[in-house]
Amino acid sequence: MMDQLFAEKDVRQFALAVFRKMGCSEEDTALATDVLLQADFRGIDSHGLARLSGYVRLWEAGRINPKPDIKLVHETPSTAVIDGDKGLGLVVAPFAMKIAIEKAKQCGTGWVAVKNSNHFGIAAYHSMMALAHDMIGLSMTNASPLVAPTFSSERLLGTNPICVAIPAGEEPPFVADFATTTAANGKLEILQRKNMEAPLGWIQTREGGETSNPFELQQGGALTPLGSDREHGSHKGFCLGAWVDIFSAVLSGANYGPWVPPFVSFLSPPDDPVGEGIGHFLGAMRVDAFRPKEDFFKHMDNWIQRFRSAKTIKDEKQVVIPGDPEREQESLRKEQGIPLNKKVVDELISVGEKLGADFPKN
Amino acid sequence: MMDQLFAEKDVRQFALAVFRKMGCSEEDTALATDVLLQADFRGIDSHGLARLSGYVRLWEAGRINPKPDIKLVHETPSTAVIDGDKGLGLVVAPFAMKIAIEKAKQCGTGWVAVKNSNHFGIAAYHSMMALAHDMIGLSMTNASPLVAPTFSSERLLGTNPICVAIPAGEEPPFVADFATTTAANGKLEILQRKNMEAPLGWIQTREGGETSNPFELQQGGALTPLGSDREHGSHKGFCLGAWVDIFSAVLSGANYGPWVPPFVSFLSPPDDPVGEGIGHFLGAMRVDAFRPKEDFFKHMDNWIQRFRSAKTIKDEKQVVIPGDPEREQESLRKEQGIPLNKKVVDELISVGEKLGADFPKN
Repeated sequence: MMDQLFAEKDVRQFALAVFRKMGCSEEDTALATDVLLQADFRGIDSHGLARLSGYVRLWEAGRINPKPDIKLVHETPSTAVIDGDKGLGLVVAPFAMKIAIEKAKQCGTGWVAVKNSNHFGIAAYHSMMALAHDMIGLSMTNASPLVAPTFSSERLLGTNPICVAIPAGEEPPFVADFATTTAANGKLEILQRKNMEAPLGWIQTREGGETSNPFELQQGGALTPLGSDREHGSHKGFCLGAWVDIFSAVLSGANYGPWVPPFVSFLSPPDDPVGEGIGHFLGAMRVDAFRPKEDFFKHMDNWIQRFRSAKTIKDEKQVVIPGDPEREQESLRKEQGIPLNKKVVDELISVGEKLGADFPKN
Repeated sequence: MMDQLFAEKDVRQFALAVFRKMGCSEEDTALATDVLLQADFRGIDSHGLARLSGYVRLWEAGRINPKPDIKLVHETPSTAVIDGDKGLGLVVAPFAMKIAIEKAKQCGTGWVAVKNSNHFGIAAYHSMMALAHDMIGLSMTNASPLVAPTFSSERLLGTNPICVAIPAGEEPPFVADFATTTAANGKLEILQRKNMEAPLGWIQTREGGETSNPFELQQGGALTPLGSDREHGSHKGFCLGAWVDIFSAVLSGANYGPWVPPFVSFLSPPDDPVGEGIGHFLGAMRVDAFRPKEDFFKHMDNWIQRFRSAKTIKDEKQVVIPGDPEREQESLRKEQGIPLNKKVVDELISVGEKLGADFPKN
């Protein structure tokens, strides 16, 4: 089944209508739509319109507050903690990132931990906010437990992504946005839709054994931390996921580890929460807090050009600079439209019917 | 061949004598010895006394300045850049970390980029300096190019380690210290000494093909980024190594990527340097810049206890909390002594003879 292509204007109108119907303010509606569509443009299909019906279901379940009173609850010159008041992460995270950027203007860097939030879309949106200010941006978030630490048969961590966005001069920015697992959950979903096997090392069975069944998660299995197994460094992937979890939630006062509330509305959050909602951690560092901007940009350009022109393994075209594939997708999709899978389209049509928002014909 | 055991007191005397003979000040001699031995205690054998003869050779080659004038060359309230004046990284990095800690006292966090330095020993020593101040410590460094980015047949990155040290309450701290490669170079050296094959996925041949030959690096091969291959996420390991390289060197003005000077003295540094020496990046964040210390410690204890008691895969004892194995080694070795390989002992004896410092009999 081929994906259908939709014009930006049309799906934007639809997403705006849905967030409005949920009761979001005009400002939040525009921002949430922007963050969501940015995922579709950049080719992170799992985090764009495909997630919209999930947000709606969480709102229906009373777990997303469409009119949050987002508050700064603690601060120092270079840090802050934000209470997201159960708002959409799509709105709470940019609020927090703005504060990180303001603090970086004042004292070189700014670091903001967020509690009581929800799924924040693609991490790249938030770190990339720093780029326009000639700053490096960092963002990370915890997520519902799907990942088993090395040696564990229990799922205790989310796919806990990290994004580092670094500005350059003539070159486009370096933007590394990745789940701290061997494969992101979105990759599994693609295999499930196509009924294809997963490479060994991506997932384990509920007992911790090897499997290539992409449906294993539904049967109590788990994603593996980056590295796949102990021999190939999965303990390092576990360290990364744990780092994200602790910075996002233990620093902020959100839920961590197995207590992170599930994204899907049909599963209830644990009844013994250790914090509030899910957590994020955001940072901004002024480049010229370290060295003159011009010098930094010149050397970033040189870094990128040197790596991009590396000698490659036979049959490989070139070393991929983080951010390049997403940028290519973006210019392609801005021109040709956003491809949506039939299952996603059907879900969006039914969400639209329920809320009284017309999903566009393509 | 069994390793020989040496008493702490004896090898400490020897290391002190060597750094003194190199011309280091009494203060620097004590500090460098402390950082070096901490590696041996924690079981990171590749980074302890085994490295001492390498430092001596770099000093003989004029590439290490035993009397550096370490200078702060730029700062904002939360950032600084340090020029290490070609000093031992063992001394330069703690100098920089102290500044990060001071800045964190003042404004919540402190971030210090370092240029013109040398190999800094184990990353954990530096991040762990923050723990006594109830701060989270971060440290990273770039290193001579041994790693091929995904799709590359060229070595463009070092094993570029990251260490995050996080204090807890009743539990010992969380200390994750790991190379951003599938396997650290020290692991390969062990296989070489024992003449054993390496697991597939650790290294690639000079053309980028699969190999299990642990000597492949000597023939132009490369270590792989964490993830081993594209299908198992090596592009994420590449992102991590690149992140460390850019923060350590492009931010500070050190050499980056393939321009990082080699650790071994028999290879000359590139004759077209893009910066000065090698680079580090260090950070400190006050826990109470985010939330009350007591709350943070209580939840870190809970985090650690929950993960440590996870249900395990059959035949596995428990989930390993980062820092636990090194702490176990430390208490064992403080009691029983430091094990040294015969090859390392022979090298140290000959270094001692050259400099007029007696290596202890065991």
